[in-house]
Amino acid sequence: MSANRKSGVFITFEGIEGSGKSTQAKLLASGLAAAGVEVIATHEPGGTLISDRIRALLLDPEHTDMDATTELLLYAAARAQHLAQKIRPALAAGAVVICDRFSDSTVAYQGFGRGIARELLDAVDAVATGRLRPHLTILCDLDVRQGLQRNRNARKRDRLELEAVDFHEKVRAGFLALAHDDPGRFHIVDAAQPPDVLAAEILARVKKVLWDSAK
Amino acid sequence: MSANRKSGVFITFEGIEGSGKSTQAKLLASGLAAAGVEVIATHEPGGTLISDRIRALLLDPEHTDMDATTELLLYAAARAQHLAQKIRPALAAGAVVICDRFSDSTVAYQGFGRGIARELLDAVDAVATGRLRPHLTILCDLDVRQGLQRNRNARKRDRLELEAVDFHEKVRAGFLALAHDDPGRFHIVDAAQPPDVLAAEILARVKKVLWDSAK
Repeated sequence: MSANRKSGVFITFEGIEGSGKSTQAKLLASGLAAAGVEVIATHEPGGTLISDRIRALLLDPEHTDMDATTELLLYAAARAQHLAQKIRPALAAGAVVICDRFSDSTVAYQGFGRGIARELLDAVDAVATGRLRPHLTILCDLDVRQGLQRNRNARKRDRLELEAVDFHEKVRAGFLALAHDDPGRFHIVDAAQPPDVLAAEILARVKKVLWDSAK
Repeated sequence: MSANRKSGVFITFEGIEGSGKSTQAKLLASGLAAAGVEVIATHEPGGTLISDRIRALLLDPEHTDMDATTELLLYAAARAQHLAQKIRPALAAGAVVICDRFSDSTVAYQGFGRGIARELLDAVDAVATGRLRPHLTILCDLDVRQGLQRNRNARKRDRLELEAVDFHEKVRAGFLALAHDDPGRFHIVDAAQPPDVLAAEILARVKKVLWDSAK
């Protein structure tokens, strides 16, 4: 179904910690590849050597004195490199690019979570992305305590995951507000569902978007 | 002369590679300390643990595929952290802060040197600095080949210093254009002079600025 597409399709996954979005991003990539679609799966922060080094700075539990503006600019730097080296070339080659977290995470975490003004976020994101927007964003929505519990079970404890529950509640509300403001781009899924049920729902939605984009 | 000053004075040093600005910044700090002024000497990119880690990313010779926008955002991130942890607290305590490179280097290197649009640079810098401007900027102006020769002699060869002479010519012209546009803030010195002669000229100028600011 991608044979006649001239440029790629950009799909992002968003959601709070423990929402299972990374698992779902991988399942979607496998599902599309099995259907013969050329697909690139990647993630933020990271995705390139330089972006991975920036990611290591951001997630280092020693960096508790990191300023909120510094954090914003580091995420933007990792994103700019990721776009230049990986996402834009893949889209130009006609691939489907699946990215675990993108600009919406910045608005949810740094804006709704930390209270940085939206106009600052948008100014920095415009520099980092050149205003590139995903064609489709899957928001894996989940109760905050349920997400944190899943992560505790998996023993994943980086700096962000040690934040208070209150912070993650703000982040979740931020994602839902973004989805409300852009219903054409966002597709909200209930991440409390069994992973295979969720994966089937997401794959169906994505196939519809790909089909529409190839028309 | 700083006894009655309510808030600090922010002095930056700018110039191309090999212009001797780092040496001059240190000499000024010693000269002011000897005159009983409370002084903090620092440098960009760096100045804090997190900023130093960002600096290491920027100067790593392996990172030849770093995107120009990534570079811009990393410098801004290091600057935001440096301001939050070191420069603003010192200024609030009434100190004289001497910083080796600041926002003007971004405009000279990323704008004039790499051709990133000035409005993008200004938007990112406004986020990083909250529009904080130095009270005085000493521009150590020097012929590019003379500067590069000095660095070769000192065996300093990082990624930036391996750039073509043409790039450094653009950077030098950029610094001079910035100084031309803001003559009240900039003081241009001829960095080809012997270091002690230059240091005396700079110290005299700085003492005048401190005297005026304490009135």
